[in-house]
Amino acid sequence: MAHIALPPEFPGIIGPLAAYRDTEKHLDGLANALMCGPSSLTKAERELIATYVSSGNECYFCTNSHAAVARHLLGEKQHLVADILADAATAHIDEKLRALLVIAGKVRKDGRLVTAEDVAKAREHGADDRAIHDTVLIAAMFCMFNRYVDGLATWTPRDPQVYEEIGARIATKGYGSRFRESS
Amino acid sequence: MAHIALPPEFPGIIGPLAAYRDTEKHLDGLANALMCGPSSLTKAERELIATYVSSGNECYFCTNSHAAVARHLLGEKQHLVADILADAATAHIDEKLRALLVIAGKVRKDGRLVTAEDVAKAREHGADDRAIHDTVLIAAMFCMFNRYVDGLATWTPRDPQVYEEIGARIATKGYGSRFRESS
Repeated sequence: MAHIALPPEFPGIIGPLAAYRDTEKHLDGLANALMCGPSSLTKAERELIATYVSSGNECYFCTNSHAAVARHLLGEKQHLVADILADAATAHIDEKLRALLVIAGKVRKDGRLVTAEDVAKAREHGADDRAIHDTVLIAAMFCMFNRYVDGLATWTPRDPQVYEEIGARIATKGYGSRFRESS
Repeated sequence: MAHIALPPEFPGIIGPLAAYRDTEKHLDGLANALMCGPSSLTKAERELIATYVSSGNECYFCTNSHAAVARHLLGEKQHLVADILADAATAHIDEKLRALLVIAGKVRKDGRLVTAEDVAKAREHGADDRAIHDTVLIAAMFCMFNRYVDGLATWTPRDPQVYEEIGARIATKGYGSRFRESS
């Protein structure tokens, strides 16, 4: 049971987003800008970073939701999601993304762990300032989302279909679309 | 030196906020809604939670900035900022705030650490759902801000006057006012 009263029909972060709309507006606005807006990273790369960070934080709801978004975006390469979660160091991804996942993993633990060498390695493989900025902020933002979900003990369905539906919705309509449609 | 090019005149988070305005808008909107908008917590209580979390994450820029905001809001009780940072368990604060700081400290480490007993204790001392929600989201949000600041290795001035000015500005004008004034 969640630590506060939340609408019972909504799993995970959707509960507190629905109940606290004055912050929902900005949380969804931020997620849309960062995950779906202009960037030198593809939407799939950004969702893989989000999934990797959420998995590191062991947030079941966020990991499964963003894994589903990433699979929808990746199409026939959707196996990369499971590959990265199994072992990002050996997954068949390009070296730019691998270097960015290293940065994201360090930001997840403590931002001060990111070194000039980590950043130089990402740049060698094609990451620009925007990619580095977005990687750091995506990792930081999911450290917030993961804690919002788990710190309130929100409802965590175990039915994979729930996450497939969330993944399809976000991949096609972006973040917060359920609130924009209903308002 | 920061890991990416940032405007050199801005310390800490203000650098990436100024350089990446598409996310700045939502980050400042979120901070304003949560820290300055309607809540069952006072603005000073919210800034004390922000300072406590940032101190736990050892983020020099955020700790000193929000300690200054809290001092401005607390007036003659401004010693509470240093008292809480020295030892929240013995500081002369009311038991509601002490219980909320326990929750915030756990969210900082891992949201799953928050127990039903932690929440019940906060309720016994007068915290309502809104106070618990806002405490969890403030702690989560500062886990994001701290990582954004430190993960990009932003400029961290050591001159206390810099933080006094940031504190006075936020306490009187809210978050993001420097961008709203100039745009």
